[in-house]
Amino acid sequence: MQNEIRIGSDAGAAAWIERDMAVVWHGFTQMECYGRNAPLIVERAEGRELIDVDGRRYLDAISSLWVTTLGHRVPELDAALRDQIDRVAHSTLLGNGNRVVIELAEALAQVVPMDQPHFLFAADGASAVEQSLKIAFQYWRNIGHGQGRDTYLAFGEAYHGDTVGGLSVGGGGFGTEVFQPLRFPVLRAPSFARKDALREAARMVETHAQRLAAVIVEPMVQGAAGMLIAPAGDFLQLQQACERTGVLLICDEVATGFGRTGSLFAAEQCGLRPDLMCLGKGITGGYLPMSASVANRRVYEAFLGPDLSERTFYHGHSYGGNALAAAVALRHLSLLKQWNVLDNVRARSAQLEASLRASERLRAAARDIRVAGLMCAIELAGDDAQRRLARRTCAAMVRRGVLARSLGSNVILVPPLTVTAAEIERIVATLAAALGDVLDEVAVLDEAGA
Amino acid sequence: MQNEIRIGSDAGAAAWIERDMAVVWHGFTQMECYGRNAPLIVERAEGRELIDVDGRRYLDAISSLWVTTLGHRVPELDAALRDQIDRVAHSTLLGNGNRVVIELAEALAQVVPMDQPHFLFAADGASAVEQSLKIAFQYWRNIGHGQGRDTYLAFGEAYHGDTVGGLSVGGGGFGTEVFQPLRFPVLRAPSFARKDALREAARMVETHAQRLAAVIVEPMVQGAAGMLIAPAGDFLQLQQACERTGVLLICDEVATGFGRTGSLFAAEQCGLRPDLMCLGKGITGGYLPMSASVANRRVYEAFLGPDLSERTFYHGHSYGGNALAAAVALRHLSLLKQWNVLDNVRARSAQLEASLRASERLRAAARDIRVAGLMCAIELAGDDAQRRLARRTCAAMVRRGVLARSLGSNVILVPPLTVTAAEIERIVATLAAALGDVLDEVAVLDEAGA
Repeated sequence: MQNEIRIGSDAGAAAWIERDMAVVWHGFTQMECYGRNAPLIVERAEGRELIDVDGRRYLDAISSLWVTTLGHRVPELDAALRDQIDRVAHSTLLGNGNRVVIELAEALAQVVPMDQPHFLFAADGASAVEQSLKIAFQYWRNIGHGQGRDTYLAFGEAYHGDTVGGLSVGGGGFGTEVFQPLRFPVLRAPSFARKDALREAARMVETHAQRLAAVIVEPMVQGAAGMLIAPAGDFLQLQQACERTGVLLICDEVATGFGRTGSLFAAEQCGLRPDLMCLGKGITGGYLPMSASVANRRVYEAFLGPDLSERTFYHGHSYGGNALAAAVALRHLSLLKQWNVLDNVRARSAQLEASLRASERLRAAARDIRVAGLMCAIELAGDDAQRRLARRTCAAMVRRGVLARSLGSNVILVPPLTVTAAEIERIVATLAAALGDVLDEVAVLDEAGA
Repeated sequence: MQNEIRIGSDAGAAAWIERDMAVVWHGFTQMECYGRNAPLIVERAEGRELIDVDGRRYLDAISSLWVTTLGHRVPELDAALRDQIDRVAHSTLLGNGNRVVIELAEALAQVVPMDQPHFLFAADGASAVEQSLKIAFQYWRNIGHGQGRDTYLAFGEAYHGDTVGGLSVGGGGFGTEVFQPLRFPVLRAPSFARKDALREAARMVETHAQRLAAVIVEPMVQGAAGMLIAPAGDFLQLQQACERTGVLLICDEVATGFGRTGSLFAAEQCGLRPDLMCLGKGITGGYLPMSASVANRRVYEAFLGPDLSERTFYHGHSYGGNALAAAVALRHLSLLKQWNVLDNVRARSAQLEASLRASERLRAAARDIRVAGLMCAIELAGDDAQRRLARRTCAAMVRRGVLARSLGSNVILVPPLTVTAAEIERIVATLAAALGDVLDEVAVLDEAGA
């Protein structure tokens, strides 16, 4: 297999990494150090394995950054894509429709926990957040109660994407302080690290309702914060505060949606029926960029009015409702059900948590282990930017054939939703071994330094 | 053909429009009136024609909102997509690479008018704008001169997408005033409607340099403003002002890039070598969502530093650098050259302008006719939200088999770059006939009202 790929003078991962660094700027990546942090140069994939330019195989334990659900190269999704290629790749949704997009929206409407939902499509998850924020903002103007309702309630450590609107409701971190002059101000509830976060948020909604267009929340799991988990039962009090005051509730399910937490949407486990939802990542099974803002009847109807009138939502993205992505998303939604994927998520989630906690080495090294569905963080004790324990542990995992990625002091595991029991054991064993490698190195260095 | 598709009780455009309105929220569209504005429900396509659910064919004279370049269902692009499906649909670019994305970035690096460019990919054009704005902002902090450089110079009537950052540098219009409390403040140069726009912008850069992170401009054509065109020769003075003061120059080529104005990028005709560029729309030939921010060496190197350090650009989109989109974009770039597409754009552009100006009816009804490459606006005299002349003319064109879309008082024509001479004549004849229909209606109504 390696011979098959090592053709020509430019083959081989090291050469590809050089070429990569010469022209590509990778997101959330310090490019000075890119080549030294064990990057994969992926050429192809099979099932849950990525295959690099040298033919080496890696279990994709981060689902290509939380997007892959059923695995790579799923024959049914490939077939849906091929069929749509024979129809049309894309036609605009601005003022016009596309059959497969209508079929997708109808299918989604059956499963989102919302009243008479309408779907406004975009491609980046952050764009879905921006759309939802702006819809909530304009909603109050359209119904004639805009005065003063010009901010949002958002949570500490929240992550809602990197565009300026998403950054504004986001809870900071990741060097976002630099952009403070560009952010609009919001009211800030505690992060899910505080046990009373939802109670406090509900109280803030009641107190500040007249200033709030909406509350935006990641239901159940603050993913990018390092998988901070709030008890599902805590969310109802937030919804009740919204109902009492009229403040709109936006659920950002970009990371949690499409089975990731063990239900199709995390909002279901929380008993939420939001006014607006943001969808992304898993919506196409990890194949193609697609995102959507979903509005319930109350919100949608506030935008109906005369043609070309100010009640219109003047917002749209060229590739919103891409037909190829819609065809994949439609088939993906049916496969999630047909294959009982949610059952597997729940079973593998329980196994993953038990297996992590059963490892003596992990128990000793971890400050905390957090698991919700197949979103998992192992927070390492005594880590910092000097030691880079989580970073180096993930690099050591990659060398052992499992793709992981760190987030601050956390090793993050987000395997595909179809991960097997054997693969879960392999991931945990690889993590334990990799952590052992890194702790041994650190011990040697500490000794040398002492 | 119609019999082939009219199967089952739910077939037929009217029924599909009902289904569409029940679940889809279309961007930039007043949904109350959606069904009455001659929407197409597209099912498939062939070449430059879209085919609706009833088998009716429409010449796509808006390139599915300015994205389609070579036409729909291009065998070579379909083949590139099919080949990539057999490799991998997507793998993350956060900290990792993908072979086809590297190949695409290498090919793009050969053709963008920039020094040692690096490409940071996203999916929505607005996301590319947001990335570029944030990169320019952080650039000054990274080099230790951030103090005070916390705004941008942007142009009147500019359009840079609908996310909050794009909206902030955008020149308003489209009901964006509603969102004023969310927008960060910028310095505003005149729109291209003013003959001295670029001279005034250059003067403002010199005067306010210490406050400016960057200038953002749509080179040559302000598209969404209704194809406002500035002379290519005017742009050099802006670049010179940037060079003298160090202010970064961002060219937003989302609409103008990939041949739309007759050169691969409009910046080339303007003699610009920007520090940052925003790419989108035509990058995949109109097939798949992809966008990119491009940074030159000066900008890129300011972000290099220690691992996990504050110099890093902590920003990224899950689907940035999607492999399927990259495979199409790579093949598309070679086809633009192989087929001498730019020659056709220039020839058809001249023909379109001459043909429009030769029409007596159009000359009489138009306040202005603006053509740059294959971006064209026919601004109708005496139009307003009551008369909706442009809107109704486009609807009448659709009934005659040519898909057009209005923008305020403008009929907008943006045909695929491979449009033929015969198709140009058909578009102009259809426009003239459609305008005749509408003006007749108006005359009857005016008489009835008088």
